Amino acid sequence: MSDNSFGRLLRVTTFGESHGPAIGCVIDGCPPGIAIAPEDFRADLDRRATGKSRHTSQRHEADEVEILSGVYEGITTGTPIGLLVRNTDARSKDYSKIAEQFRPGHADYTYLHKYGRRDPRGGGRSSARETTMRVAAAVIAKKWLRDRHGITVQAHVSQIADIRPRGFDVAAIEGNPFFWPDASQVAEIEAFMDALRKSGDSVGARVDVVARNVPPGWGEPIYGKLDAEIAAAMMSINAVKGVEIGAGFAAVAQRGTEHRDLMSPAGFASNHAGGILGGISSGQDITCSVAFKPTSSLRLPGATVDTAGQPVEVITTGRHDPCVGLRAPPICEAMLALVLMDQALRHRAQCGDVGVVLPVVPGGGA
Amino acid sequence: MSDNSFGRLLRVTTFGESHGPAIGCVIDGCPPGIAIAPEDFRADLDRRATGKSRHTSQRHEADEVEILSGVYEGITTGTPIGLLVRNTDARSKDYSKIAEQFRPGHADYTYLHKYGRRDPRGGGRSSARETTMRVAAAVIAKKWLRDRHGITVQAHVSQIADIRPRGFDVAAIEGNPFFWPDASQVAEIEAFMDALRKSGDSVGARVDVVARNVPPGWGEPIYGKLDAEIAAAMMSINAVKGVEIGAGFAAVAQRGTEHRDLMSPAGFASNHAGGILGGISSGQDITCSVAFKPTSSLRLPGATVDTAGQPVEVITTGRHDPCVGLRAPPICEAMLALVLMDQALRHRAQCGDVGVVLPVVPGGGA
Amino acid sequence: MSDNSFGRLLRVTTFGESHGPAIGCVIDGCPPGIAIAPEDFRADLDRRATGKSRHTSQRHEADEVEILSGVYEGITTGTPIGLLVRNTDARSKDYSKIAEQFRPGHADYTYLHKYGRRDPRGGGRSSARETTMRVAAAVIAKKWLRDRHGITVQAHVSQIADIRPRGFDVAAIEGNPFFWPDASQVAEIEAFMDALRKSGDSVGARVDVVARNVPPGWGEPIYGKLDAEIAAAMMSINAVKGVEIGAGFAAVAQRGTEHRDLMSPAGFASNHAGGILGGISSGQDITCSVAFKPTSSLRLPGATVDTAGQPVEVITTGRHDPCVGLRAPPICEAMLALVLMDQALRHRAQCGDVGVVLPVVPGGGA
Amino acid sequence: MSDNSFGRLLRVTTFGESHGPAIGCVIDGCPPGIAIAPEDFRADLDRRATGKSRHTSQRHEADEVEILSGVYEGITTGTPIGLLVRNTDARSKDYSKIAEQFRPGHADYTYLHKYGRRDPRGGGRSSARETTMRVAAAVIAKKWLRDRHGITVQAHVSQIADIRPRGFDVAAIEGNPFFWPDASQVAEIEAFMDALRKSGDSVGARVDVVARNVPPGWGEPIYGKLDAEIAAAMMSINAVKGVEIGAGFAAVAQRGTEHRDLMSPAGFASNHAGGILGGISSGQDITCSVAFKPTSSLRLPGATVDTAGQPVEVITTGRHDPCVGLRAPPICEAMLALVLMDQALRHRAQCGDVGVVLPVVPGGGA
Repeated sequence: MSDNSFGRLLRVTTFGESHGPAIGCVIDGCPPGIAIAPEDFRADLDRRATGKSRHTSQRHEADEVEILSGVYEGITTGTPIGLLVRNTDARSKDYSKIAEQFRPGHADYTYLHKYGRRDPRGGGRSSARETTMRVAAAVIAKKWLRDRHGITVQAHVSQIADIRPRGFDVAAIEGNPFFWPDASQVAEIEAFMDALRKSGDSVGARVDVVARNVPPGWGEPIYGKLDAEIAAAMMSINAVKGVEIGAGFAAVAQRGTEHRDLMSPAGFASNHAGGILGGISSGQDITCSVAFKPTSSLRLPGATVDTAGQPVEVITTGRHDPCVGLRAPPICEAMLALVLMDQALRHRAQCGDVGVVLPVVPGGGA
Repeated sequence: MSDNSFGRLLRVTTFGESHGPAIGCVIDGCPPGIAIAPEDFRADLDRRATGKSRHTSQRHEADEVEILSGVYEGITTGTPIGLLVRNTDARSKDYSKIAEQFRPGHADYTYLHKYGRRDPRGGGRSSARETTMRVAAAVIAKKWLRDRHGITVQAHVSQIADIRPRGFDVAAIEGNPFFWPDASQVAEIEAFMDALRKSGDSVGARVDVVARNVPPGWGEPIYGKLDAEIAAAMMSINAVKGVEIGAGFAAVAQRGTEHRDLMSPAGFASNHAGGILGGISSGQDITCSVAFKPTSSLRLPGATVDTAGQPVEVITTGRHDPCVGLRAPPICEAMLALVLMDQALRHRAQCGDVGVVLPVVPGGGA
Repeated sequence: MSDNSFGRLLRVTTFGESHGPAIGCVIDGCPPGIAIAPEDFRADLDRRATGKSRHTSQRHEADEVEILSGVYEGITTGTPIGLLVRNTDARSKDYSKIAEQFRPGHADYTYLHKYGRRDPRGGGRSSARETTMRVAAAVIAKKWLRDRHGITVQAHVSQIADIRPRGFDVAAIEGNPFFWPDASQVAEIEAFMDALRKSGDSVGARVDVVARNVPPGWGEPIYGKLDAEIAAAMMSINAVKGVEIGAGFAAVAQRGTEHRDLMSPAGFASNHAGGILGGISSGQDITCSVAFKPTSSLRLPGATVDTAGQPVEVITTGRHDPCVGLRAPPICEAMLALVLMDQALRHRAQCGDVGVVLPVVPGGGA
Repeated sequence: MSDNSFGRLLRVTTFGESHGPAIGCVIDGCPPGIAIAPEDFRADLDRRATGKSRHTSQRHEADEVEILSGVYEGITTGTPIGLLVRNTDARSKDYSKIAEQFRPGHADYTYLHKYGRRDPRGGGRSSARETTMRVAAAVIAKKWLRDRHGITVQAHVSQIADIRPRGFDVAAIEGNPFFWPDASQVAEIEAFMDALRKSGDSVGARVDVVARNVPPGWGEPIYGKLDAEIAAAMMSINAVKGVEIGAGFAAVAQRGTEHRDLMSPAGFASNHAGGILGGISSGQDITCSVAFKPTSSLRLPGATVDTAGQPVEVITTGRHDPCVGLRAPPICEAMLALVLMDQALRHRAQCGDVGVVLPVVPGGGA
């Protein structure tokens, strides 16, 4: 059936290949009355863009967003919002060899088995370029969440290979090319990344994302649980291999008396749940952690097979990130924002009548 | 909107509360021609049932499945299959106090914020009793996957608190009450669990689940990726806090040369991908690991608030598992089986014409 | 995929065969806070029930609705509402001959081509018995529409064969077994029906249904237009061959100056649109007309083929309505109510912020 | 939620306003392996285009389709197909007056009530210009249906005001600007249309559409019935007020012995069912009839209100069709083709295993 749409009520449909004429999306179900201008997309698209520093891929895309529909006199009208980004830096080259070999760790082999054919140019549809449109669509979601509910969504890198933050300063995150929360480690990471790039190898990364000020009550039991949809949203990002909510895998070794977040009129005593209980937001910070694998596109040769089933050695040339996770924070933010806004609309649909029924326990990330 | 349905083409809708008259489900979209009898549900329902050993909750449900529709002369007809299980051991008691307090770590507080009211009896809809119907529905999916594709789905417990398997013997898993793959550790775990139960506390667990013999080509890029749907499926199970595919979070510290699974005509050299590339099955074993938190229902008192916002101390009496993960393997298997069958039908819909286009690299879990 | 669910946000899933153990439904997405008791279903189920008069089929079902879930202390909780009706009057008989012949005008031939097998007992899943659950589910929708919005939904028969109402008295409709709006014609219709039943033949009927007090603004352009969903809802009822909104087919011969409904501060001058413009409700009465074919179950012999492709003559014995449309008004009401409530929730999801932006032109059916 | 997508497995999402920068669509779920070139869209877009003759609106759009994605080397790859058409003839003018008045019979009033704002330029999203993308998307569906199943879909105008065809010659339909099946009446219709245009008024039309060679077995009971989805598809087209399948409203006055289509090894004796029984195709021609209202955009003044609720007189200037139904045949074909291809994929998903189980009774339109 192909599944290029995301969300139930706020529904984003993306299209486009890495080296085709354009990528784009349609955002359906967006409430009317939101002010949106082309320049609103600039900040987040730049944050995820390739070529931000020498540590990420050197593809330079203008990534100019054209608003094709759904906005009149600068305000959303409730009709579908079409966004278009032309591919301007898709270098023409000979793809015939790439088309005949399966890069290990890539979708080449599986796409060909599924569809019987594939667009080999730059990874085609399976390229991370698709995530551009997720980030673009989420610009609207972030704006709505912030303006209507005071919600912020922020991600940072919390691990690169074995390197972990020594301290945490939220102000540091946007001040370095690694979305790293401890400025004192930046030089060390730069040296690490330079050496890595020289070696031709790649590493994985962990990204933490948090949503603050989400009101209690969002989320759909049983199969549309807020955490279940966050897990799917994150796992749908290229290169993701794991997702945790709150304490995550650490919960396995916890005792119940430690894990359960006690409550008092002053607030929750802890947040091992990650802001979600029974699939529904509790008012605490929603916390999520995501594992990105090291990219498999390496100039170090690797054994594989070709379309005839014969053994070959593949070397991936071209522009590639030695650590794809370094560009992932805006994408993780985007997916979390899209899930939250969709759930907010769904909650309003079913429970729009339910008034405040009980005192709210102060949330936050305590 | 409420989301009590799971799957796109094989669509399971469940209903029922823990202590209401019955729980049930409707399985829609099931292919015709599958032989199903009431006794086919017995084995898996017993595997997940409470009261299997002294280490799990002592609620004793007969869990007799009545087939209400969709099966004629023992064969599915393609019409919706209605399954019903009466609740026979829902003890009547006074819930007025429970209704006024929020158990920490439970959905009490969030359900009430969402809906403005809740059924407090035994956790109502948020009880793990709902998973009975997932297991029942998946009996049909497992049968179809095995009969048509030779696929098996099997789960085991791979961690309890800090205890990990020393060895791995697939034959051991079903031979002890812990779904534990090393028989030599069973006595140790029994002692640990007995002490835990006496202490009144609880612990978490990790469950690993694997699907073997899945053909290459199943999965829907971009937002219906096989791994994204598995992540959602697992995270929708009560008490789950994390999901990994293949190497999972270990991928963060891997190098690309280590993580990428090299290929040769003899097969894949490793399976860090967990059998999924670009959201599509590769023919390797599909491997998934799931974190279960320790249950929050404890007879050890904990601070909380009541519906008036006043501080209270709560003690949860009644039947509860000190380690809910011990009953989870059949549920994890069920969710993986439902995802796989659904994706199989979706693949057939779009790509039913695509014949074998290239040699299959031997899969397995190497 | 099979499509036994109806609605997007208020989602009704039905199951069950005519002569199986039970029929039932799950209503998902229902707002919390609605008072519902088993006796609330009585009136509408009686209105559609067989055996209401000598003019409808003599099958006598108790049609006792059991509420299995989603209601606590008589109030909906927001969790899925399971309803069950046992089949008590499914007479056991020999179906082997029926299983081998295709009744003309029935789904026997098409079900067997689709699924490769079928349940021949009483029409199985294709029996109009399934509509019982539509009527039951809509009891809740009607209640919500009336209590929250003052909306009423009412249907009547507006044509039987060539007989049309001479006058229209809304008070007459529920006072005769034909849902007929002119009491002075009832004796004539009774005579007509008695003669028809004696002849062994059957006739068609037309049913008109109207929803009053629907506020302006409900409906989803482009493909979820209110009229498009009403059309699908009505056409999904057994035996329906045509649907009109407002002027319907009469619009073909109208001039634009006649058809367009002029507006003034005093209201609309006419209602040829049937209360819907651009797929969205205008505040006028929503009017719909539905064509029911004559039943094909006749004791008069008809030529057909058997499963071997050989010619045979079929005679349908058993209990059948000479005019199935006579039981259809409650079913048409049910489908319209379900569409309206679903659209109301969808409207609230997207446009819950949009306040009153302009004066409402008085609606009604002028 | 907004509903700008159509279809379940073959899913078309359209976007764009009449006078915005562009209109477009995304076709998701399309099978791989279909040859598609930009010029393939030409014929059907020309058939529906404005300005085809003096009898339709004089807006002249190039309607050049750009394929943005999903096609590689001229063949569909299974990834979403993005199509874009720039609006080139959207004349700039002053819309401030139009923005403040509600044209009778238009969506102006209802859009403003729903969304609180609207794009007044040329009808915005509610313009029939949106149907361009339906026709474009269906070019692919028609090709697939024809190439894989030999299915053809063809529509003609069967009534204009009170004028009906005297004869029926399928070869005549494409030979005149009215899609009229009797060439001898063309001069008469031209005279009628010329007089109508001069008068400033408009008329309605009826369009019949037929699909030939549909195999038995397509369609999803209960709520996804083939006829239910055709009804929704047709009613979703601008200006449609009624839909009939097979005998349609004529079935009301038929006897069962007349309506039921008897069968013999030589075929069906008639086709009052319109090729659908129980919501599933029977192998006979699928026949559908659609009522189009007269356009409400008239230069003859009409009473209405403005956004302040004050009475005003509105005159619609600009380019408008005196009979919108005359351009509808390609749109009706498009919707029927999209429904059929979607159902074909759905049938393959669930019943792909079901082989030929019984002799096929010859179909056709007898």
